[in-house]
Amino acid sequence: MINIGVIGYGYWGPNLVRNMFEVPDTQVIAVSDMRQERLQQVKLRYPSVEVTTDFNDLLNNPKIDAVAIATPVHTHYELALKALRCGKHVMVEKPMTSTSEEALQLIDEADSRKLTLLVDHTFVYTGAVRKIKAIVDSGNIGDILYYDSTRINLGLFQRDVDVIWDLAVHDLAIMDYILPASPCAVAATGINHVFGGTENLAYITMFFEGNLIGHVNVNWLSPVKVRRTLLGGSKQMIVYDDMEPSEKVKVYDKGITLNGASDSLYKALVGYRSGDMFAPQLDVSEALKVEIQHFADCIGSGAEPTTGGQAGLRVVRILESASLSMKQRGKLVHLGTEVPAYARGAA
Amino acid sequence: MINIGVIGYGYWGPNLVRNMFEVPDTQVIAVSDMRQERLQQVKLRYPSVEVTTDFNDLLNNPKIDAVAIATPVHTHYELALKALRCGKHVMVEKPMTSTSEEALQLIDEADSRKLTLLVDHTFVYTGAVRKIKAIVDSGNIGDILYYDSTRINLGLFQRDVDVIWDLAVHDLAIMDYILPASPCAVAATGINHVFGGTENLAYITMFFEGNLIGHVNVNWLSPVKVRRTLLGGSKQMIVYDDMEPSEKVKVYDKGITLNGASDSLYKALVGYRSGDMFAPQLDVSEALKVEIQHFADCIGSGAEPTTGGQAGLRVVRILESASLSMKQRGKLVHLGTEVPAYARGAA
Amino acid sequence: MINIGVIGYGYWGPNLVRNMFEVPDTQVIAVSDMRQERLQQVKLRYPSVEVTTDFNDLLNNPKIDAVAIATPVHTHYELALKALRCGKHVMVEKPMTSTSEEALQLIDEADSRKLTLLVDHTFVYTGAVRKIKAIVDSGNIGDILYYDSTRINLGLFQRDVDVIWDLAVHDLAIMDYILPASPCAVAATGINHVFGGTENLAYITMFFEGNLIGHVNVNWLSPVKVRRTLLGGSKQMIVYDDMEPSEKVKVYDKGITLNGASDSLYKALVGYRSGDMFAPQLDVSEALKVEIQHFADCIGSGAEPTTGGQAGLRVVRILESASLSMKQRGKLVHLGTEVPAYARGAA
Amino acid sequence: MINIGVIGYGYWGPNLVRNMFEVPDTQVIAVSDMRQERLQQVKLRYPSVEVTTDFNDLLNNPKIDAVAIATPVHTHYELALKALRCGKHVMVEKPMTSTSEEALQLIDEADSRKLTLLVDHTFVYTGAVRKIKAIVDSGNIGDILYYDSTRINLGLFQRDVDVIWDLAVHDLAIMDYILPASPCAVAATGINHVFGGTENLAYITMFFEGNLIGHVNVNWLSPVKVRRTLLGGSKQMIVYDDMEPSEKVKVYDKGITLNGASDSLYKALVGYRSGDMFAPQLDVSEALKVEIQHFADCIGSGAEPTTGGQAGLRVVRILESASLSMKQRGKLVHLGTEVPAYARGAA
Repeated sequence: MINIGVIGYGYWGPNLVRNMFEVPDTQVIAVSDMRQERLQQVKLRYPSVEVTTDFNDLLNNPKIDAVAIATPVHTHYELALKALRCGKHVMVEKPMTSTSEEALQLIDEADSRKLTLLVDHTFVYTGAVRKIKAIVDSGNIGDILYYDSTRINLGLFQRDVDVIWDLAVHDLAIMDYILPASPCAVAATGINHVFGGTENLAYITMFFEGNLIGHVNVNWLSPVKVRRTLLGGSKQMIVYDDMEPSEKVKVYDKGITLNGASDSLYKALVGYRSGDMFAPQLDVSEALKVEIQHFADCIGSGAEPTTGGQAGLRVVRILESASLSMKQRGKLVHLGTEVPAYARGAA
Repeated sequence: MINIGVIGYGYWGPNLVRNMFEVPDTQVIAVSDMRQERLQQVKLRYPSVEVTTDFNDLLNNPKIDAVAIATPVHTHYELALKALRCGKHVMVEKPMTSTSEEALQLIDEADSRKLTLLVDHTFVYTGAVRKIKAIVDSGNIGDILYYDSTRINLGLFQRDVDVIWDLAVHDLAIMDYILPASPCAVAATGINHVFGGTENLAYITMFFEGNLIGHVNVNWLSPVKVRRTLLGGSKQMIVYDDMEPSEKVKVYDKGITLNGASDSLYKALVGYRSGDMFAPQLDVSEALKVEIQHFADCIGSGAEPTTGGQAGLRVVRILESASLSMKQRGKLVHLGTEVPAYARGAA
Repeated sequence: MINIGVIGYGYWGPNLVRNMFEVPDTQVIAVSDMRQERLQQVKLRYPSVEVTTDFNDLLNNPKIDAVAIATPVHTHYELALKALRCGKHVMVEKPMTSTSEEALQLIDEADSRKLTLLVDHTFVYTGAVRKIKAIVDSGNIGDILYYDSTRINLGLFQRDVDVIWDLAVHDLAIMDYILPASPCAVAATGINHVFGGTENLAYITMFFEGNLIGHVNVNWLSPVKVRRTLLGGSKQMIVYDDMEPSEKVKVYDKGITLNGASDSLYKALVGYRSGDMFAPQLDVSEALKVEIQHFADCIGSGAEPTTGGQAGLRVVRILESASLSMKQRGKLVHLGTEVPAYARGAA
Repeated sequence: MINIGVIGYGYWGPNLVRNMFEVPDTQVIAVSDMRQERLQQVKLRYPSVEVTTDFNDLLNNPKIDAVAIATPVHTHYELALKALRCGKHVMVEKPMTSTSEEALQLIDEADSRKLTLLVDHTFVYTGAVRKIKAIVDSGNIGDILYYDSTRINLGLFQRDVDVIWDLAVHDLAIMDYILPASPCAVAATGINHVFGGTENLAYITMFFEGNLIGHVNVNWLSPVKVRRTLLGGSKQMIVYDDMEPSEKVKVYDKGITLNGASDSLYKALVGYRSGDMFAPQLDVSEALKVEIQHFADCIGSGAEPTTGGQAGLRVVRILESASLSMKQRGKLVHLGTEVPAYARGAA
């Protein structure tokens, strides 16, 4: 049994606690939050769980094996670093940190102490995304030509992070999981409609080596909620619509056929295919439960999590670059493909 | 009765001819196309209409008052110029021309001869877009904050124009009609998946003075057809979904409230509103029929068409800039707000 | 080339004429309608077609091989009978006649003269219904357990026929085509909301031998248009939604598994299957064009049409029984399975 | 604070307990269930709650003011009767009882002891149904012409009740709440596809005095989940689609206009209106929480609950009649409008 302390009981904390009780290998023994009224909620639902306003009580508790950090982004680095230094395994909310430099340090700290560091890229553990990964890996989809996602709704305007860090992070995490490569450059545009606020609407284009392009449309000011991702392949194309109650993933046997012929006639080069569509049955397990079981398994085996520190770092680097590009109205920002020295030592 | 000659009987020509017969003030008396099999189609359906493979026969026919040009884009300029010089009123397919320089010359030619020049921005004449225009003009929507459109499907890969000139042109025409201003800069990204082809997928961000941003997502390689536009206002927000069989336009009484208070607390500055939605009844007249009636009316009165040469020019200038930006992976291209000397003379 | 005369140029007549010109083996040479303004429409579009207000002109024209009858239901019998007696092949709108007795006489007349008699059950010729038929015939769907259709919209209130004869006739024609048997009894309920009118909303249950039941919900007073049919099989289930722009037919690998075990535990008897869904590609040819080609083929070969007189008769007999049941608030009406003497002679 | 004991912790029990803890005026102090593993679930989540396999422990506990009964239908009568006789207020799952005779006895028992008896017609407490009720009561919808509901999915085949008692009960409860009258006769059809089972698919027509008709389509063997209700009025029409994530209730300004003129021309009598649609904002409070608060309020004030014993009885009487009609393939069953002697004494 892995004893977990949860730091932060705001929007996501209750989901963490509930699932940690449902996974047989884990249990929550303490929760910290600076707000007394949140701690009262814990006591009402889970009378056996200890509560405290000081997260140090969790770090200093020898019965606690691991902590989950569900606090604002700018606190992730400090909290995770302290926890690792206290010998705790760490599950940290996305985005992993505010800067890639911080992410590198956490990776280093976890590696040197042989502790498990998992970034909560929840979507990676959904039945839908795992099915898409399986289809991509099977090769049936062919070469991947584009990833195009729309993730918009009337969402909470946040003060400390822009809409890219809040919403696009989900797509970057999914892309990091299912695509065979990372982007080499990014161009982003956006706007802030509120005086003194951050960008509440943004568009990110990601360039890859070869024939692949990525695009994410995120918006806190949409009257309708859309969660739709298109994944275009040379043989098949996938539509993933998370708002569908069932049939979230549809695979289309549609596309174009490119003939290698050097024929000067263009029409001879492009043929159109239109065939059946199928919607595979999906595992409907709650993603967070699957993820916490994976966290427990990695703690036990010492294996690198599917969404470990390196995945978290790759996502943060794209977030940094996108925000930077957005400040300059779409100026191209290159993402060096080489890993910095600091990280190389850690890897 | 206005006698019309139609040049080009490919995909769109039959719609032009059918509607010109349905509008009481117009009739088609001749059609030209270089393909004999297309002309046979005309004879089968409209035995009374003259057919020819030489468009000059139409321009030289004194009974013809006006011509409609429904040929590939790169021929628009030459055909329209000749027609105007032969004293014919002109209705030309979108995009108006391949370059803004050409568009300016057509405007000049039409103005100097006092001929009507209408660009076939068909969507502007739909019941849906006219209703959106009315809502915007009423002021109920408040300040317009963004225009965000997705226009994707498994479309014909074209050789001579990229997907921006083929699909985004519809959105640029709609924006030109309903928005209070034109963009001052554009940043576009895209990709060409076919060797020797043009970009088949593109994303365009348009920057405006003030608080407004525009974005268009166009794609010839999508397994599903999407035609959805969001128009975000400070008081109301509109979703226009052209794939809906009815209720294409939905108006949401949703949004945020910005308090002018200089309060340092951010939360006090942003309030969320969520109210009723309503879908106004739309005029279901065929847009092309409304447009052809408007063309006839402008010929009669000498009035400038809603989608006249200036509108066509503004759209072509954005298309040019977007393609230019796309070639440079999103480099910002400024659209001078001043009108060039050539045009000033014409205006 | 089969020369056709069309009797009646109201709502459906123009579709008949247009498709008869598009099918290579047929052409329209004359149209009759009692309304001069309708005949003017014909002349405008098809100057070569003769027009007349007297249908006898068509029947007496020796150049005419076949007539299509697109007039109100109560006139079908008399017009079709006269046409057959004049030696013309007949294509008649659905429902075939107002009574089964009339339908039997038309079958007899056509048979004795070796003329082709086709009832225009248009849906039978759609790509969607033909695909469903193929799936049923393949046996993949297993035993058919139910047919359940909803066909509602804000429709024209008709005076001479009730909503069953106007809308349910489509489902009865589809059922006649795809199901392995005809119903043995019917129970229908409905209501008329307009003084002096006919029932504008009705529900029909059809009982079959064995494990199959059918139900049709028709309504002229619905604010939304619904065209959805469920076909439940023991192995697969089909949803046919005609309002979907694409993917009209979806096949679900879902259902229950019945164990033959005599086990007293009920739970052991019912297992649930939930698997993939697939949407087969459909032929998008216009149904009416396919049907007219079939009419021409049957005239040429002497073969019985897929929707010949017997199919028309079976549908009329169910319509009669349903209206009769509805007048008695759902009283069960048995449909004799034996064919009457009159028909036997004709078959 | 009202102390509640919950009898039965199967599918619905956990929802009752959770909401009873969230409503400030109620708390659960004991739960009974015959299955030890269910009681362990209670202890895990709510360590402070007493558990027992004997419901008599709850009835004999003087600290318990009220019980909620969430057990199979055939046990409702006995459990509720015992609870009332022990002086407990009772909230009982729908359907209230297996027979109307039993329902009458419960009403009598509660009345004579001045105890609150509430039947858990949960849908009545949803924001959607309460909004529909408000629209109907406002008179804007005009005369109600029909109620037509489809409630189908791949559901659990139940052994002791047929699909009418399982699914149609929801619609009967909603109709009882929003319609101005109760049905005077019912005709139902259905089929049982499983040897030894109950009907798994049924159609119920309800006849009312005047111009109103009701119909419910319920099915445990549908591959898709549908929850759609149409409410047709003479002035407006409502579509209530419970599967919509938002905009569950849409009000259409569509319909027909009936002219009172005694004119012999039918067309003059029916006019068609087609106008705007609007979707009112709905209260998104959890229905069960609203209902439990109402239960607590009624216990406090002695007022009759919105879904009290009389509502439960009316629903059970229609269920009885529908099942009876279904056994006879749609034979009309009259629902006497007079209340039996037994009930009259109780009322």
